[in-house]
Amino acid sequence: MKVPENLIDFFLKEERFLIATHINPEGDALGSSIALSMALESLGKETVLYDKGPVPESYRFLPGYERFGISVPELSRPDGRTPLVLLDCNEPSRAGLEKVIIPYSAVIDHHETLKEFGDIKWVEPSAAATGVMVYNLIRKLGVGITKEMAVNLYTAISIDSGTFRFDNTTADTLRIGADLIDSGADPAAIAQGLYESWSEGRLKLLINVLNTLEITDGVAMTVAAKAAFEKTGTSADDTENFSNFSQLMKKIKVSAFFRETDNGWKVSLRSRGDVNVAEIAVVFGGGGHRNAAGYTAKKDLDTAKKELLKTINIYYHQSCQK
Amino acid sequence: MKVPENLIDFFLKEERFLIATHINPEGDALGSSIALSMALESLGKETVLYDKGPVPESYRFLPGYERFGISVPELSRPDGRTPLVLLDCNEPSRAGLEKVIIPYSAVIDHHETLKEFGDIKWVEPSAAATGVMVYNLIRKLGVGITKEMAVNLYTAISIDSGTFRFDNTTADTLRIGADLIDSGADPAAIAQGLYESWSEGRLKLLINVLNTLEITDGVAMTVAAKAAFEKTGTSADDTENFSNFSQLMKKIKVSAFFRETDNGWKVSLRSRGDVNVAEIAVVFGGGGHRNAAGYTAKKDLDTAKKELLKTINIYYHQSCQK
Repeated sequence: MKVPENLIDFFLKEERFLIATHINPEGDALGSSIALSMALESLGKETVLYDKGPVPESYRFLPGYERFGISVPELSRPDGRTPLVLLDCNEPSRAGLEKVIIPYSAVIDHHETLKEFGDIKWVEPSAAATGVMVYNLIRKLGVGITKEMAVNLYTAISIDSGTFRFDNTTADTLRIGADLIDSGADPAAIAQGLYESWSEGRLKLLINVLNTLEITDGVAMTVAAKAAFEKTGTSADDTENFSNFSQLMKKIKVSAFFRETDNGWKVSLRSRGDVNVAEIAVVFGGGGHRNAAGYTAKKDLDTAKKELLKTINIYYHQSCQK
Repeated sequence: MKVPENLIDFFLKEERFLIATHINPEGDALGSSIALSMALESLGKETVLYDKGPVPESYRFLPGYERFGISVPELSRPDGRTPLVLLDCNEPSRAGLEKVIIPYSAVIDHHETLKEFGDIKWVEPSAAATGVMVYNLIRKLGVGITKEMAVNLYTAISIDSGTFRFDNTTADTLRIGADLIDSGADPAAIAQGLYESWSEGRLKLLINVLNTLEITDGVAMTVAAKAAFEKTGTSADDTENFSNFSQLMKKIKVSAFFRETDNGWKVSLRSRGDVNVAEIAVVFGGGGHRNAAGYTAKKDLDTAKKELLKTINIYYHQSCQK
């Protein structure tokens, strides 16, 4: 992976940076930002980390998470001196910075994008995580990776590659993981932090959701109604990855998870391989990736389910005729 | 990892091998055996693979699984010419070979052992999997790793390291994984084969089991009664890893999974870190490892649960006084 020369020059030349990442940050956004902040500080630079909301409870095992502030700091005001580094997203609005005047900016992201923003732009859709890019950048900057940086980068790469299970995992992803273990990351402790830190309420919510399982024509549907959240003392955050449980089954082509909100049903779709759920989500005004997409349905649950099943059937019928 | 010289000499000198592994083989037993068989054949040797039962359905994605025969083959009869290679276990009875006369034998295993068996013995408890050992052996034998060998070894290492999530995962485990990807192993396809190949009945059995969840004093208990297997058309094999689901919760110190058999209840215990469930299993005549152990309870479920809770409480009381 080639790190752009002008990006390296930028980090070596500038003295202060505002590092910001997307709203509702997960492990890749947080870990990449914290590790980059630590690396730049070790070069004598000043950094401020910004996310619009607080760091989620579940990621407070990351060393240095308290670096994140939730107000745009003084030094980022339009004095023309502090450039923005946008990580794991590629336009200021994704980080809640649409109203801030930005004198100069660099973008580091692995999402596919058509956005124009960024004086320096480094986008690598083939990277399993932004953490992989930041790892390469830190190496190029000549900074030694400390244990704290290693834990952050290993977490970043883990969450976005399903700890080396998703199809973005390459030999290099594993080699970087190995190097981060050598630098002090503990793979089992990080896996435990990421995957075995559920509250009792969350497991009870999952049980509640699994009890709603319906399978029709290879489509598995599960539901989290408001009553389930109330009964288990949980919130929307607790449903992260719930749509994956139906994917344990080999013969399921699409999994749909319906979550009740004040404003209808949020529907998360999952699939494998060639089954493109983004195309189905688009029909309902949503979007996403080929194997993970979503939309909002402002109607009663039964109608929403029926419309989804019908649309998937039409999609299949068309696919077969192609 | 140092491969013993006499083991390398043995494989280079002998011409025919009976490769056998333990009863109820899983991915490490199967993948290691198949990869070693392929490597030896590429050196012009003859091999026969033996397991007492058929290869489980769930592992028939392994290339070369059909090499396994379930009857001890002709050439292994006591003619003094065909040595036994015992993989992923360290005594013939574990492979159902207690009645076979064995002229000469080599043992390759990563389980801790006090057994005497084996003319050549290579036991590495620090290896995440027997697959790690076989990888190193194949390299030492100077054999190029084919795609088929890579898939088998990657599967072996994946299953025994939780795909790099368990605390036996080291930087070297990941580096070997990277090398196997370079040789043709597809990490996402293998993860899907291992973790997303459930039948509909199996997920329904899991739901049934999770509905029995009881949490008392940090101990989570779940139950698979015979009726649940009948209702979902499943068998004991389908409960593999079910004891891990309660471990998703951070505050659980011990998870116990009770499975009904013709002969009482099989109890699987799981824990994390310092909580030693092997010591608890021993009280009931069972055994195992620190964080994964089990025993059989020949009594009614309520009594079995109460006795377990009492024993765990006593264990904790004693641990606190230490």
